[in-house]
Amino acid sequence: MKYPIVSIIMGSDSDLPVLQQTADFLSSIAIPFELTIVSAHRTPTRMFEFAQNAHHRGIKVIIAGAGGAAHLPGMVASLSPLPVIGVPIKSSNSIDGWDSILSILQMPNGVPVATVALNAGQNAGILAAQIIGSSQADVLQKILDYKQGLSEKVEAKAKIVEAQFS
Amino acid sequence: MKYPIVSIIMGSDSDLPVLQQTADFLSSIAIPFELTIVSAHRTPTRMFEFAQNAHHRGIKVIIAGAGGAAHLPGMVASLSPLPVIGVPIKSSNSIDGWDSILSILQMPNGVPVATVALNAGQNAGILAAQIIGSSQADVLQKILDYKQGLSEKVEAKAKIVEAQFS
Amino acid sequence: MKYPIVSIIMGSDSDLPVLQQTADFLSSIAIPFELTIVSAHRTPTRMFEFAQNAHHRGIKVIIAGAGGAAHLPGMVASLSPLPVIGVPIKSSNSIDGWDSILSILQMPNGVPVATVALNAGQNAGILAAQIIGSSQADVLQKILDYKQGLSEKVEAKAKIVEAQFS
Amino acid sequence: MKYPIVSIIMGSDSDLPVLQQTADFLSSIAIPFELTIVSAHRTPTRMFEFAQNAHHRGIKVIIAGAGGAAHLPGMVASLSPLPVIGVPIKSSNSIDGWDSILSILQMPNGVPVATVALNAGQNAGILAAQIIGSSQADVLQKILDYKQGLSEKVEAKAKIVEAQFS
Amino acid sequence: MKYPIVSIIMGSDSDLPVLQQTADFLSSIAIPFELTIVSAHRTPTRMFEFAQNAHHRGIKVIIAGAGGAAHLPGMVASLSPLPVIGVPIKSSNSIDGWDSILSILQMPNGVPVATVALNAGQNAGILAAQIIGSSQADVLQKILDYKQGLSEKVEAKAKIVEAQFS
Amino acid sequence: MKYPIVSIIMGSDSDLPVLQQTADFLSSIAIPFELTIVSAHRTPTRMFEFAQNAHHRGIKVIIAGAGGAAHLPGMVASLSPLPVIGVPIKSSNSIDGWDSILSILQMPNGVPVATVALNAGQNAGILAAQIIGSSQADVLQKILDYKQGLSEKVEAKAKIVEAQFS
Amino acid sequence: MKYPIVSIIMGSDSDLPVLQQTADFLSSIAIPFELTIVSAHRTPTRMFEFAQNAHHRGIKVIIAGAGGAAHLPGMVASLSPLPVIGVPIKSSNSIDGWDSILSILQMPNGVPVATVALNAGQNAGILAAQIIGSSQADVLQKILDYKQGLSEKVEAKAKIVEAQFS
Amino acid sequence: MKYPIVSIIMGSDSDLPVLQQTADFLSSIAIPFELTIVSAHRTPTRMFEFAQNAHHRGIKVIIAGAGGAAHLPGMVASLSPLPVIGVPIKSSNSIDGWDSILSILQMPNGVPVATVALNAGQNAGILAAQIIGSSQADVLQKILDYKQGLSEKVEAKAKIVEAQFS
Repeated sequence: MKYPIVSIIMGSDSDLPVLQQTADFLSSIAIPFELTIVSAHRTPTRMFEFAQNAHHRGIKVIIAGAGGAAHLPGMVASLSPLPVIGVPIKSSNSIDGWDSILSILQMPNGVPVATVALNAGQNAGILAAQIIGSSQADVLQKILDYKQGLSEKVEAKAKIVEAQFS
Repeated sequence: MKYPIVSIIMGSDSDLPVLQQTADFLSSIAIPFELTIVSAHRTPTRMFEFAQNAHHRGIKVIIAGAGGAAHLPGMVASLSPLPVIGVPIKSSNSIDGWDSILSILQMPNGVPVATVALNAGQNAGILAAQIIGSSQADVLQKILDYKQGLSEKVEAKAKIVEAQFS
Repeated sequence: MKYPIVSIIMGSDSDLPVLQQTADFLSSIAIPFELTIVSAHRTPTRMFEFAQNAHHRGIKVIIAGAGGAAHLPGMVASLSPLPVIGVPIKSSNSIDGWDSILSILQMPNGVPVATVALNAGQNAGILAAQIIGSSQADVLQKILDYKQGLSEKVEAKAKIVEAQFS
Repeated sequence: MKYPIVSIIMGSDSDLPVLQQTADFLSSIAIPFELTIVSAHRTPTRMFEFAQNAHHRGIKVIIAGAGGAAHLPGMVASLSPLPVIGVPIKSSNSIDGWDSILSILQMPNGVPVATVALNAGQNAGILAAQIIGSSQADVLQKILDYKQGLSEKVEAKAKIVEAQFS
Repeated sequence: MKYPIVSIIMGSDSDLPVLQQTADFLSSIAIPFELTIVSAHRTPTRMFEFAQNAHHRGIKVIIAGAGGAAHLPGMVASLSPLPVIGVPIKSSNSIDGWDSILSILQMPNGVPVATVALNAGQNAGILAAQIIGSSQADVLQKILDYKQGLSEKVEAKAKIVEAQFS
Repeated sequence: MKYPIVSIIMGSDSDLPVLQQTADFLSSIAIPFELTIVSAHRTPTRMFEFAQNAHHRGIKVIIAGAGGAAHLPGMVASLSPLPVIGVPIKSSNSIDGWDSILSILQMPNGVPVATVALNAGQNAGILAAQIIGSSQADVLQKILDYKQGLSEKVEAKAKIVEAQFS
Repeated sequence: MKYPIVSIIMGSDSDLPVLQQTADFLSSIAIPFELTIVSAHRTPTRMFEFAQNAHHRGIKVIIAGAGGAAHLPGMVASLSPLPVIGVPIKSSNSIDGWDSILSILQMPNGVPVATVALNAGQNAGILAAQIIGSSQADVLQKILDYKQGLSEKVEAKAKIVEAQFS
Repeated sequence: MKYPIVSIIMGSDSDLPVLQQTADFLSSIAIPFELTIVSAHRTPTRMFEFAQNAHHRGIKVIIAGAGGAAHLPGMVASLSPLPVIGVPIKSSNSIDGWDSILSILQMPNGVPVATVALNAGQNAGILAAQIIGSSQADVLQKILDYKQGLSEKVEAKAKIVEAQFS
């Protein structure tokens, strides 16, 4: 793999099914990434080092997924100058995901996290690609192609449904 | 002003106090922007044209603020390949802001919106700068400086409070 | 089928089980309808064309179902002069349906959506029939008959339960 | 006034400020209406008579506003074959309007209420006009004109804001 | 069965599992009751007659269970001078039971409903017995005995658990 | 005053404005009551004694109001065989009253609290009167008269509003 | 077992799976504890005696778990001078755990409960150990060791995941 | 002041009114404390150093107050072996305090925060005293005296209210 430009981190290996979707999307459009576990609460020192150094290692976007009182995205955003995408995850014992959403979204002035929908691992990947695409024309074109594909899939399904109901 | 690279739009002029903070932050670090009103519900054609053309005009990041059933950020994200930052706004008759937050955040697979906190106009500006900074070293440095300034302000206040309680 | 006067659209084919109930009710009282997929986020152009033309094609009521950040009903209402009935759908990764309800219900001044209960596909069909019935006496009578039938079914069940507990 | 075709009712005179907006909209496009107080809980017999007779008196659409445990719209819908538009009202001691919204929206299969946003008196009027417009071409045209007006107002405001920020 | 003094009604036969617990409790302490289905929305006339006549038939307490936009308890309370106990029921498509709870609890001034917990059929029966017990010493004694039994059951379980952990 | 048959207690003197409405209603229909402060958390022994003895002193119904984590109604219900009416109060630092409502309403099997709406002091008084009225014909008649009065007031207001809009 | 210094109580034996985790943690670091059932609502006298005497028996921390309208932790805190840790439990018929959380957390001024996350039995044990550790150096060291272990487990899992994605 | 054994920190000086109540309580019972500002998001390095060293400086309990996406209490708990009391604060732009409560309360297994009620600065101080009191008999006695005082104040107020209503 080429040097990664997106870093995907998660608070626990139980979050992997959601972040796997992130990885899959980035693979599909050939954006090199890394993926690992960094826990704000159980490995705070590891998190500190990760967040303070990511931009020195060539990372351009960080994607952080976490559940419950999800401090990982916000703490990484506190320590890194890079854009941080937060993925709220509906973990077991979560309160319908509200805890994760609010812990990631409601950051104070000065330290934003780009929050996506609950469990939206794929959208985190797309948003990372859009951020990279805002300065790289080839990636921007891939986003346009991807959107075109989405549209075509819906139209194909629409034809099937229409046939069924006419 | 130089050609804008960030476009700030809002659904109603009542949203201006929040988005003014976005403009102020971008001005403070000399990122050229434009600001206007585009309503998904009252000017859908205008929104369509805006969103389909923004990336052709050199815009790199779109910031869209809206309240209530806030469809503007998501619809612009649907039509543009650029990263779209959504700012939920607690309007009058909003249900504590929940309507705006959920309408912006909970986008389906394929069309992310980078959502920031309720009324967090300033954070939308910072996030736009971070997105631009991920490919422009000088803007990245400005983010680092800004964070340093945040830290220094807190430490100065801490000294005052400590003196008061010792 | 005769020319449709009700148009049923949904954001995704996963919404079909709910909207099938709408179709079933309209079929049961012989109101001609069409049914297809139109995604606000994945086929915005298709949505635009659909919504701007429906009233020119003889459609009298539009029923739109969607989940999550459900922009379809509101955007169609923005583009069409017809009454639009919105059906909030509790999709996977929805937050108990709150996202869909609030995205559809909390429309701003100027652009109402006639929102029905979560997953209430059948009620959307009944409401469409009532709208048509408000100017067509035969359809109004069918609504009266339907309500009479509801009442009789409850009374029959009541007798069974009463027998069981006396 | 000509014979009313829309009936606006409310559970309490404290709801009048919201329903006044309904009346104002209908007046503005010359749709004749009546307006009175009918309380499901304090005048149940009056409600019964009102709801059972409205369609015999030439009413085509009923608009019912109520707060708290808001039973008026649903009970009227239970008793009348006409389309009933429900306006949730955020009364004092309401729980942020949630009680009113859920009491009106979450109707069981068989008895829909066309619910609009919290306190959205104006939208109730527009929706009533759209229902009438679905069978009366002149009213449909008024809706189209109204929407055109909304769009022009936004564009005018957009010019002012753009001038301020360029 | 002796003439019933408690009347148990429910909006739908799907509510029977919850109200069966009410019946079981009343049977266990020999309070005569009746049980049937009365739907506010599908049998409004039946509901009217039921509620206006119950106190003439010797009923002393009414227990009404309903789900979703649950208008049955409040409407019966509107029409009857008797104390009405409301049982919120978490039906399918309910929003976690919030709709039912708020529709029953948040009654306006003048028309209270004695609301018990979600799905708390047994507690509705106990409360009805307490209401009757407030004027009948033998029923009051049964409540005291029941409470004594509750306490003894907990203490017996406590001994088992303590043995396990010592 | 005659010996009280209703006991009104509240957790704090800040709850008095709500419970004053209870007292006012009971006074208006000449039901003798007592009113005092009993705090579950700050005077647990006082609460214990109060709850265990109330039925020995001739009390027939207990009304308990409290805010926040409101344990007073449930604990009194635990200790007394009498029907206990709980009044949730929206205190300062309450979370919109949700804490008080859920703490009072969601009692476990075996120990019901007859919960009324948030801040509904008057309804607690009416419900107490209905409980007494279920065994005293003169009080039942007062409830019927009160309801008649409610209805007449609404009809008088309706005439005024109708005159204004015709 | 040595004399217990932590007392674990629960409102019902259905809460045991959560509190078992508390017991397991305390066993793992050799802090002697007792565990039993005490119901605020079904055994109020038992609760009174337990809470008033615990500190006389050498108990240093009380852990109380309960679901629904969870009054046990707050009532014990009212009666005991010891620190009380409350464990909200998501019981059946709970409203997503909100009732339990708010009943335990939102205690009035004067009577705090140290609330942990929903169903967080293990964390209650750790917090009790930290409280004891704040005055016992050997227990403090065990906490430090436990945290070190948490960190090492995450780092080991991180290596596995990194290998998988590189 | 003697060497502090409680450390009170807050994320922003706007939180001081709440934490002042903490300081006031600790002063009232002569427990030495320190108070300063430490922001998880704006001074992460300062927070790291604070949290890793507090127990070496003789601190026995940490009290951390924060609003919005409140990461301070949880991050300090991650880094320190001491018991950490979290005080959720309802800041401006907070969503009724839910964000702060859930961010502090819903910590993952391994890292508890002893959460108190929204804005409950005083209760944080009392809980800290109880923690210290669990190993210091004189402080435990102060807690007992404080509770006795609470009780007496309520009883005095009760007499005034009783006089007013008899």
